[in-house]
Amino acid sequence: MQQYLPQVLENRQKGLKAISTPERLLLGPGPSNAHPDVLRAIARPPVGHLDPFYIELMGEVQELLRHVWQTQNRLTLPMSGTGSAAMEATIANSVEPGDKVLVAIKGYFGNRLSDMASRYQAEVVHIEKEWGQAFSLDEIEEALVLHRPAILAMVHAETSTGVLQPMEGIGDLCRKFDCLLLLDTVTSLGGVPLFLDEWKIDLAYSCSQKGLSCPPGLGPFSMGPRAEEKLTKRKGKVPNWYLDVSLLNQYWGSNRVYHHTAPVNMNFGIRESLRLLAEEGLENSWNRHKASASRLWDGLERLGLRLHVDESLRLATLTTVVIPEGVDGKAFSNHLLNKHGVEVGGGLGSLAGKVWRIGLMGYNSTDENVDYILNLFEMELPSFQK
Amino acid sequence: MQQYLPQVLENRQKGLKAISTPERLLLGPGPSNAHPDVLRAIARPPVGHLDPFYIELMGEVQELLRHVWQTQNRLTLPMSGTGSAAMEATIANSVEPGDKVLVAIKGYFGNRLSDMASRYQAEVVHIEKEWGQAFSLDEIEEALVLHRPAILAMVHAETSTGVLQPMEGIGDLCRKFDCLLLLDTVTSLGGVPLFLDEWKIDLAYSCSQKGLSCPPGLGPFSMGPRAEEKLTKRKGKVPNWYLDVSLLNQYWGSNRVYHHTAPVNMNFGIRESLRLLAEEGLENSWNRHKASASRLWDGLERLGLRLHVDESLRLATLTTVVIPEGVDGKAFSNHLLNKHGVEVGGGLGSLAGKVWRIGLMGYNSTDENVDYILNLFEMELPSFQK
Repeated sequence: MQQYLPQVLENRQKGLKAISTPERLLLGPGPSNAHPDVLRAIARPPVGHLDPFYIELMGEVQELLRHVWQTQNRLTLPMSGTGSAAMEATIANSVEPGDKVLVAIKGYFGNRLSDMASRYQAEVVHIEKEWGQAFSLDEIEEALVLHRPAILAMVHAETSTGVLQPMEGIGDLCRKFDCLLLLDTVTSLGGVPLFLDEWKIDLAYSCSQKGLSCPPGLGPFSMGPRAEEKLTKRKGKVPNWYLDVSLLNQYWGSNRVYHHTAPVNMNFGIRESLRLLAEEGLENSWNRHKASASRLWDGLERLGLRLHVDESLRLATLTTVVIPEGVDGKAFSNHLLNKHGVEVGGGLGSLAGKVWRIGLMGYNSTDENVDYILNLFEMELPSFQK
Repeated sequence: MQQYLPQVLENRQKGLKAISTPERLLLGPGPSNAHPDVLRAIARPPVGHLDPFYIELMGEVQELLRHVWQTQNRLTLPMSGTGSAAMEATIANSVEPGDKVLVAIKGYFGNRLSDMASRYQAEVVHIEKEWGQAFSLDEIEEALVLHRPAILAMVHAETSTGVLQPMEGIGDLCRKFDCLLLLDTVTSLGGVPLFLDEWKIDLAYSCSQKGLSCPPGLGPFSMGPRAEEKLTKRKGKVPNWYLDVSLLNQYWGSNRVYHHTAPVNMNFGIRESLRLLAEEGLENSWNRHKASASRLWDGLERLGLRLHVDESLRLATLTTVVIPEGVDGKAFSNHLLNKHGVEVGGGLGSLAGKVWRIGLMGYNSTDENVDYILNLFEMELPSFQK
């Protein structure tokens, strides 16, 4: 059959050159630089998503993820999307229409959880803290007593503020009030102490491009037995096909039923990044992040800069620095990027224009990088101060 | 504040070795082998997702995607997930609760569209053809008259059967009956003639790992003005945050509002793969796919094998070969993989155990690969025939 074919439109980008990317030291809120071995792994020729080699690799990734999260959860796997996809997966697989979801908001990503939960027809209620604060156990308990939610959703490490939420006791409260505990660990996984099982976290998600030293593109996800039970008992199908864990479980579980074509090269990468982290040792990685963050904090204060978060709540992976009076924060960070190839983040939401965000995550969390950025601040900032 | 820290559990995969992947020639339904330049692009160190360099690259990717799809659609972008995520994006952004969606099913992926649409509360109706057939224009018209759907969803190139659906006239019918036309172009994009605008397609999706010679992990998506109008007018929010085009448009559009951290390395890859395709020339690529498919079909028939699809409907990118009586198809394809590192697919659904699926897609669509696989069939198949 000869088909009628229209005229092919010309390519308007004729002569586009082969890709060439700039060198960047990524000291913002993420992505962070990837480990060179991880980049090499990602560049290996793909294999089939049902190849016996790949099936074995999937098992390795799951087991390594369980280790870095300190969990035995069977349903632990990387979602085939970024951290936000994994975030949505925790909501989509746990929320049933009409469920009350209590979101503890103390920054940008609490608001996102709230938006997502409402799209899955949750009845969303909030407690809020100023951006830069954390919740006390009493505040959590009071809200659980008042709202009696089915799910409490909160952020362990707030990338928008640089606050680390203390987790002791929250899991016990959630069990007491028969509520699932859903935790954002995007900026904590691999970088700061995190114990899913000991802390009684029922649902957690993270990303590949921060503490794991892998490029962005995968969203680690974990679901414990209590959340799995809720999923099993739900009346309707999960209203999201791509992120439906009951389907994904058939591919990642022993029956290997085709669901979608896995992003195999990204999984080569996360396998290597998790292996390197396990090789370093989880506690060694936490200690390295803590040491380089302390060095950064001391250095910034020595330069007369003020940190936004009280030391007791400060996050080792991300530091918010108050932009001094009279300084155009955006102009300074643009200068660092354009002149030195160094990325530092700006503020989000209520902190827009008020802070810089300096990330020291995974591969980038080193004394050398700290000294380099401190030196840049020391040399370059004065000319931006009026 | 000194936190109480539990004992860190031991890594159960101590001593796991650095990654080493097998060499594969991927002649199955996908993923296909990636172009070496694309793999090199993916391995470049990441940059920030709001870096001026990356913003420019996003524009290039969009314009190159428009070219390969032959469309002027403003809302043309790669979803940050695999082809299945882009598939779900077309449904999530167009279906409103109660909308009637007519799915034309002639293989596995029609069924998937139907499952997805029902999760978005569509009233789903079907027309069906045997696996290996295509729909006639009369059959489509009859169904449109009968059902008066809001959306007609169908598959251009059925990866499960190897059928290419003729598209002439279907777009006009959909306009006549005031219905959106949603098309799966997963196995056609880059490999066979495809004209979104001329064919009046309102919504389309594809993948990165077939005709584009990139690894799996991105899902090209395109939405025309009629679908955009339906999106703008919808009452509630899109019930999927990650795939919500009204949010994504703010990041991919000129205001660059942060939505999620883009999978920057995969986008380096698709930019290169699309550039290489434009450099070869779209029509040259279509002709190359056609020539190597014809060579494969002739060769297989010369070996006495039967093809499942009538020549008039055969897809150049994927060929279904009837497994001869008495041959254990799975044992043969396992042998090809284990002894020769060559992947050939098996049948899905009603074709399980009945056909092999041979893909000649993108970088892999060459005379050399055709001769190689024909030679393997000639040398190895006889010992599997009883």
